[in-house]
Amino acid sequence: MDRQSLIANIKAKKSFLCVGLDTDLEKVPPSFLEMDDPIFEFNKMVIDTTKEHCVAYKPNTAFYEAYGAAGWTSLQKTIDYIGEDHFIIADAKRGDIGNTSGRYAKAFFHALNADSVTVAPYMGVDSVSPFLAFENKWVILLALTSNKGSQDFQLLKDQDGLLFEQVIAKSQEWGSIENLMYVVGATHPEQLAHIRSLVPDHFFLVPGVGAQGGTIQEVADAAFTKDCGLLVNSTRGIIYAGGNGPGYQERIRAAAADLHHQMKPYFS
Amino acid sequence: MDRQSLIANIKAKKSFLCVGLDTDLEKVPPSFLEMDDPIFEFNKMVIDTTKEHCVAYKPNTAFYEAYGAAGWTSLQKTIDYIGEDHFIIADAKRGDIGNTSGRYAKAFFHALNADSVTVAPYMGVDSVSPFLAFENKWVILLALTSNKGSQDFQLLKDQDGLLFEQVIAKSQEWGSIENLMYVVGATHPEQLAHIRSLVPDHFFLVPGVGAQGGTIQEVADAAFTKDCGLLVNSTRGIIYAGGNGPGYQERIRAAAADLHHQMKPYFS
Repeated sequence: MDRQSLIANIKAKKSFLCVGLDTDLEKVPPSFLEMDDPIFEFNKMVIDTTKEHCVAYKPNTAFYEAYGAAGWTSLQKTIDYIGEDHFIIADAKRGDIGNTSGRYAKAFFHALNADSVTVAPYMGVDSVSPFLAFENKWVILLALTSNKGSQDFQLLKDQDGLLFEQVIAKSQEWGSIENLMYVVGATHPEQLAHIRSLVPDHFFLVPGVGAQGGTIQEVADAAFTKDCGLLVNSTRGIIYAGGNGPGYQERIRAAAADLHHQMKPYFS
Repeated sequence: MDRQSLIANIKAKKSFLCVGLDTDLEKVPPSFLEMDDPIFEFNKMVIDTTKEHCVAYKPNTAFYEAYGAAGWTSLQKTIDYIGEDHFIIADAKRGDIGNTSGRYAKAFFHALNADSVTVAPYMGVDSVSPFLAFENKWVILLALTSNKGSQDFQLLKDQDGLLFEQVIAKSQEWGSIENLMYVVGATHPEQLAHIRSLVPDHFFLVPGVGAQGGTIQEVADAAFTKDCGLLVNSTRGIIYAGGNGPGYQERIRAAAADLHHQMKPYFS
């Protein structure tokens, strides 16, 4: 999906919601466990229930790889089911030497047909660039993550600035607003506005709303642009909002609708 | 595999060779392409041909994921075939928020039964620690990598030292010599001795010998310890040493034997 289509989808729906698909068989309603492919069937239900409220889905590869080849098949079926109308993020946090990153790009962009993949910057230019060589495919580069460990190295500072600022500055030479986004956690609202000043036109993928403590309002007030420029992800707050009892689907729908409702005013 | 068994295997064989299994169907002899599972069959031939010369195998997950679920099955079969006598490194460069890293640990240590997984440190403590909770399983943490992009961020310096030095220092609080190794590229021989002085007892996984320019002698002279403390990886220099023509297996054997031969004097 190209930038223009992504922005058009966002504006048409008045939503910048991304639904995370970190599907854990220990947390899905037990009726799914009796099905042939419970991960896919749960995802299918979530997609059917939330698709009018969101513009993106983000399956996290760890939750599929934990089930081996069968999990990978569930991931493939999930991406195929999502289809062309939503932006698909393979949340994989990959990054390796050039010829290996090229293989990962092939895995996520060709074999799985995701629109984008999250990439870790530690190994530098040749670990990121191979992903940027695919037309209408995107790198979403880790900048300032939402977790506690983001304090360990990402805030290290030398004369050129903090590590995450240098990741943003250097990567500007590798990609453009057409193929490069950044991960910026909602748990750092004070930094979101600062990072927006550094990269006024790039999209941010923002995890950390809900279970991790960030809010839609904090994120949008800090970093919403004329083209929106945001994909705000919620995972546990949506896909496990239903619990195990009857009516789980309505509770999942309500959780997605609530976040969507909070987003609409920004498009008026 | 625990540290004691790894050291015993190394000393018995007088080898610290790791063979990388980055199997690319565009580079294997054409006869394999006619088989049901060409990736596994090629790996099986490589393992049969090299196992007396090496102590570890390192399949790189990218090369399997590029073929989707079928590739993941080839990876599983390869790890099963390697068995208990060699140390198995899932070269995956993973790392994500805590609950996700826990899922990756499950994928690599339980579903696949690898001994170790390479982990990227960018996301800090909670992205690494979940992998360290498994008995006799290992994290191999990226410190100073062998590629060109290692210059981009790993050498950033603040009052506490270079980024890769801080990764090494902080991670000492997370793991021990029993469950934590470091990736240190052979392309930085001047740094290998320095890093050895920082962590005198930890094992290093050293890529970058052969195609990338490093040599066994440079690496061993800089960082060999009384317990060896090294796993030196060669991939392209071994598995594609055979070319496509008749006799490829003998050329693969000779390439592994040559590196093994260069290692033996360090055990006298």
